[in-house]
Amino acid sequence: MNDPSHLARCAQLAMVLEVAAHPKPGNVDRDHDFPDTTFEHFLASAVGTYPVLEEAARSRHGAGALIHAAAEESLRWQRGGNTHFGAFVLLIPLLMAAGSDTPVSKIVLDTTSEDAVEFYRAFSIANVRIDSVPDFDLGESNSADRIREDGIKLFDLMKLSADHDLIANEWVSGFERTNWCADLITKKADTMSINDAIVCTFLQMLAETPDTFIRTKFGRDKSIEISE
Amino acid sequence: MNDPSHLARCAQLAMVLEVAAHPKPGNVDRDHDFPDTTFEHFLASAVGTYPVLEEAARSRHGAGALIHAAAEESLRWQRGGNTHFGAFVLLIPLLMAAGSDTPVSKIVLDTTSEDAVEFYRAFSIANVRIDSVPDFDLGESNSADRIREDGIKLFDLMKLSADHDLIANEWVSGFERTNWCADLITKKADTMSINDAIVCTFLQMLAETPDTFIRTKFGRDKSIEISE
Repeated sequence: MNDPSHLARCAQLAMVLEVAAHPKPGNVDRDHDFPDTTFEHFLASAVGTYPVLEEAARSRHGAGALIHAAAEESLRWQRGGNTHFGAFVLLIPLLMAAGSDTPVSKIVLDTTSEDAVEFYRAFSIANVRIDSVPDFDLGESNSADRIREDGIKLFDLMKLSADHDLIANEWVSGFERTNWCADLITKKADTMSINDAIVCTFLQMLAETPDTFIRTKFGRDKSIEISE
Repeated sequence: MNDPSHLARCAQLAMVLEVAAHPKPGNVDRDHDFPDTTFEHFLASAVGTYPVLEEAARSRHGAGALIHAAAEESLRWQRGGNTHFGAFVLLIPLLMAAGSDTPVSKIVLDTTSEDAVEFYRAFSIANVRIDSVPDFDLGESNSADRIREDGIKLFDLMKLSADHDLIANEWVSGFERTNWCADLITKKADTMSINDAIVCTFLQMLAETPDTFIRTKFGRDKSIEISE
């Protein structure tokens, strides 16, 4: 069950089914592209990053470097820019946890300042749109030095963003929402297609929490409009 | 360039982009399912068979066992029945050739009667629709014994089907049509989206040769009707 290749393929399948699921208002799906990022860019990213996902399922430490490696490998396989950055930040600690039989809350708590520095590097190459953290602006080039000097762990960085970023919030809350969604999809898939199970879960989550991605891309007002 | 993981991901991406490309009259695409086989079944099959594709890129012999393993692994990951059988029969020798720097014509010529027996096993589990070969009915259970006794290689079996099956024809003609399609897609992708490049190439091929799959599934008349 925790064969690294099996786990990596599960993560890859999740990425592929998620991006294919349609319609997902405000996101790329099989019938909706962004101007510079298409459905096919996401498919190529999910395929190309397989070895990093498998490496994550063999690793107990190094979440930051793995997220960085995934972002790099993704960009090697497609020219649509940032595709799965949020997915990597969620899936990599989950793969590490599943592969090493360790609670994911412990995996993220054990991150180091080196993980935080690698995470910054991943951000800068992936050109991710984010709400910046005032104390540690992710665009600021001397942040790496400050992180090392102050001994800030990646987990600490996530805590700073947890109130305004859904993914950071998952890191500090034991991936509660992720597990809730996984359970919902599994239950719904008993009575509807996997596409509809994913879309209904997406819409349910969107109704409860304005999508961070839509918010950072189009602004909070647009995000709330789509949620309504 | 012939890193097995890189080659396997290229094959996987080809499978994913091909099934996603739309519209493909008579085939599954992102917007068209068959009653029992959906787009998502194909995605799961492409994801699940990665390790077999990588193994093929490390192998110089054993095409039959690899095709059998791919068909088995595909069925472990989805319940839509035969999805990529034709793709495996084409991609596995191509991966073996690319991974071992051997001409693909030599890879297929070097197949043995053990490859032929394994291929029969793959057929029987994948429940593939085919025009049967009169001399070696693929549904006949004692064919394996006859193949071994007569020393029939997998390449010989393909020769028997080459006049009425496009994939068998590729095996005995040095994968000429496959290379022609790959070149067409590459050229077209300079001036159109990857989706359109694949679809235009598909339609061009369909216009020239009635699709074996459509023919075996719906009959030759329907296949010619779709080609027209």
